[in-house]
Amino acid sequence: MRKVNQMKLMRVTDPHIVLELIEKEFQPLAPETAALEEAGGRVLAEPVYAGEDIPGFDRSTVDGYAVRARDSFGAQEGLPAVFECAGEILMGQPAPGALQKGQCYLIHTGGMLPEGADAVIMLEDTETLGNQVHAYRQVAPGENVIRKGEDLQRGDEALAAGRLLRAQELGWLASLGIREVKVYRKPVMGLLSTGNELVPHTTAELPPGMIRDSNSHTLAYLGRKYGAQVLESEILRDAFDYFLEKSRRLLEKVDFLVFSGGSSVGARDFTSRTMEALGEPGLLVEGISVKPGKPTLLANCGGKPVLGLPGHPVSALVIFSIFGAAILERLSGRKPRQFHPAIRATLSRNLPSRSGRTDYVCVKLEQGGNGVLAIPVFGRSGMLRMLTHADGFLVIPTEKEGLLEGEEVEVFLWE
Amino acid sequence: MRKVNQMKLMRVTDPHIVLELIEKEFQPLAPETAALEEAGGRVLAEPVYAGEDIPGFDRSTVDGYAVRARDSFGAQEGLPAVFECAGEILMGQPAPGALQKGQCYLIHTGGMLPEGADAVIMLEDTETLGNQVHAYRQVAPGENVIRKGEDLQRGDEALAAGRLLRAQELGWLASLGIREVKVYRKPVMGLLSTGNELVPHTTAELPPGMIRDSNSHTLAYLGRKYGAQVLESEILRDAFDYFLEKSRRLLEKVDFLVFSGGSSVGARDFTSRTMEALGEPGLLVEGISVKPGKPTLLANCGGKPVLGLPGHPVSALVIFSIFGAAILERLSGRKPRQFHPAIRATLSRNLPSRSGRTDYVCVKLEQGGNGVLAIPVFGRSGMLRMLTHADGFLVIPTEKEGLLEGEEVEVFLWE
Repeated sequence: MRKVNQMKLMRVTDPHIVLELIEKEFQPLAPETAALEEAGGRVLAEPVYAGEDIPGFDRSTVDGYAVRARDSFGAQEGLPAVFECAGEILMGQPAPGALQKGQCYLIHTGGMLPEGADAVIMLEDTETLGNQVHAYRQVAPGENVIRKGEDLQRGDEALAAGRLLRAQELGWLASLGIREVKVYRKPVMGLLSTGNELVPHTTAELPPGMIRDSNSHTLAYLGRKYGAQVLESEILRDAFDYFLEKSRRLLEKVDFLVFSGGSSVGARDFTSRTMEALGEPGLLVEGISVKPGKPTLLANCGGKPVLGLPGHPVSALVIFSIFGAAILERLSGRKPRQFHPAIRATLSRNLPSRSGRTDYVCVKLEQGGNGVLAIPVFGRSGMLRMLTHADGFLVIPTEKEGLLEGEEVEVFLWE
Repeated sequence: MRKVNQMKLMRVTDPHIVLELIEKEFQPLAPETAALEEAGGRVLAEPVYAGEDIPGFDRSTVDGYAVRARDSFGAQEGLPAVFECAGEILMGQPAPGALQKGQCYLIHTGGMLPEGADAVIMLEDTETLGNQVHAYRQVAPGENVIRKGEDLQRGDEALAAGRLLRAQELGWLASLGIREVKVYRKPVMGLLSTGNELVPHTTAELPPGMIRDSNSHTLAYLGRKYGAQVLESEILRDAFDYFLEKSRRLLEKVDFLVFSGGSSVGARDFTSRTMEALGEPGLLVEGISVKPGKPTLLANCGGKPVLGLPGHPVSALVIFSIFGAAILERLSGRKPRQFHPAIRATLSRNLPSRSGRTDYVCVKLEQGGNGVLAIPVFGRSGMLRMLTHADGFLVIPTEKEGLLEGEEVEVFLWE
């Protein structure tokens, strides 16, 4: 009997469905308490309430003179309202006394209004003459003032659960006197490189047929970039029981396990058997309709995501930066990104593709006379060197059979 | 004599000129040696050369059969070339022996070609019959093979000085066996908040007229995001000698000093005097033609950049994320960013501006029926709460007198 040699046909899943599965199958990690200084880049697991009115006192929003607005009524160019200056309100201090009819106080931006004052006349609308201040513009009650509690009142929600803590959220919480917050735990990511041809990058002399493990470096960097704590990686040889035992032990210590390697059909089966054996419900995805990275595996092993990346360095990098990132963001409590910043560019050449498959094409950007040019970067070897020449990638969507030279494309940067 | 009360007129510098000054006045920090694992996100100070040929042996780029190409000549559908299978080449191992005329070896992607073979026939172009392999397609010499040294030869430059080490560069260097690299030192950033109205964020009960320091949290987070190690921040009170002494001592320990606060005219003069006294040549910029953040100061104090930010939290955040980031990137050896990823959106309302000034307008993004809508976010109070509702900002360039509702804009995301 003749045997037709074919790559095993893969049951491939659409990339959008894979991203939906990630949202559906996995949950944010348990919340923990973190000091505000440690909470940046993480996601609030509980709302934060204001413990006081914000601002805590009536404040001036300008440099000028605090007055009773009605004392300024009718003031105009050539017919100033005249005030007696009762003094200066120093920053961080209350006014020396209450404001009397016809009086004003010199006040700075952020300064505390004296009792009796309800508006501030801007410095540039005034002149001083000894102890007198002449105002050439009238002000309405509340003008150039923020009232106590105007931003937020004691007990109001200051920040909702699920909010990512960026620079502004950290500053805002600091101004409320928040010292610690409940945030989702940072995911711990484990990394296992597989393949009998791999040796650690510290190997000086390569034995024949061997290559150094590069994926663990690529993936550890990306894992940290997407918010994970990355455990030291290990290279596993192909011996099923040993492999399974090592994987099981590592999975106990981590929230997310990543296999990389085994680009050959045999090694892939090996990884997929391991992923099936690690926990229920097991494999969710046995291939994604993308290029590169089609032979990607995804499993749910007892609630923990396990990702099986192709060993091919370019595929592993591209797939991790899309699907690995989505998994880490899910575990961290982040909402899926709705907006992806990109560079608008003009494609430098035709790019064929196949309908039914999403292509990620690595490109270099160049500033041309008519805007930015996106130049696809190819390499026969599949080595990462090719990617060192790329600034980012563009996407040829599933329904398209390619893109044409001169088309406008969006390029997503790598950094 | 009457005294006209006016804000001191500022000698403002165009933001593009400020960015050019940053490049011109400051230099990348001294290079240091870092282990590859610690080098991610940093910039190579010296080129890296390959210590060996890459790849180190002739490799297959597919799963298939290694052959002498000429033995396949003429093979086609219905007229196969017939090979005797001499065995399998295991990953990470050399072939058991040299290839003889008419023979083939089963080989996997990345496998080492046996002596005598010069091409690989893909698995799907073959059938097996016992020990025989029938090939239905001819291959040319070199087909599906990467030659030893094809990517790079021993002694070639593997990565140029000045290159940012992203995931792919780290993986590429690991595959070359590079254990450590020369990279520019990470900048150390010092942070001094000034203003008599400020208390630490840990203060539970605010005394009247006081507010909690929020800028140190905002700026420490942004500093780290842009690659700095941030020293603990301190709040300074306005007593010139004390202030200068503290600043001088901190400047000795850091590569970049940031003052924040002093929104009042007096406090600003105070900061500017300190910046002048800290070292030669002193103040470079005494105001930038932007909104918000016009009263920004920049000095070169003995070769170290010192940035004086407005105390206004929104201004401080916006200015730091543009100019502070540029300074940190310069010290880290990064090239100025040529391409800024953005979201394309439609402006929801008219935005007036003034010609001769660059405006940074905070916006919220919403997915509308006809694409993404950019909705400007305003707040009277100038508190950071307003920025917690913003996804990013858009720029109204100097020459424009505003933007119109419905115009297409580019929004730069905050994260």
